[in-house]
Amino acid sequence: MATLVVLYKNPKDTAAFDKHYSERHIPLAKKIPGVKKYEISKGPVMTPAGPSGIHLVATLQFDSLAAIQSAFATPEGQAAAGDLPNFATGGVDLLMFDRRDV
Amino acid sequence: MATLVVLYKNPKDTAAFDKHYSERHIPLAKKIPGVKKYEISKGPVMTPAGPSGIHLVATLQFDSLAAIQSAFATPEGQAAAGDLPNFATGGVDLLMFDRRDV
Repeated sequence: MATLVVLYKNPKDTAAFDKHYSERHIPLAKKIPGVKKYEISKGPVMTPAGPSGIHLVATLQFDSLAAIQSAFATPEGQAAAGDLPNFATGGVDLLMFDRRDV
Repeated sequence: MATLVVLYKNPKDTAAFDKHYSERHIPLAKKIPGVKKYEISKGPVMTPAGPSGIHLVATLQFDSLAAIQSAFATPEGQAAAGDLPNFATGGVDLLMFDRRDV
């Protein structure tokens, strides 16, 4: 299994971000081929020392890192990635990796 | 449910990191109270543009953000957190949040 972690830094306009994310981005992300599970953070994203500067974390599960990379190349993946500049005004980091249980 | 994401940046000595992580840190982290699932990245941590600068991602699942915060206050949580400077020579970011399915 593999994970795509999307880290959205605090946007310039939180209400606009939340509205766009729920109304526009989630439907686009759900169309990405190969997504097995899609979760988002609920409430504050914290560090042990306090607020993190991250507004939202999205975690999408796929079968493999190769499946994530293939998904980005599809029209649906391109549409979801292309939507990021429309609302991720604080910046966004995407991390993708195969994973295993410990 | 809630997630603790631990992002280890590229260490100064990868082999020393990997040895310490597997031999010393995993046993400490497994003792943290309330951990429901513990996974780590396998192989490279990528971005859509290429290497990420992150060497390892650990993901630990708990019942709630409050459970994570309580776990950090236990002796076992303090032991695991206190071990980080022993091997995380590139720096480490910890993010914790409640999550929900989309």
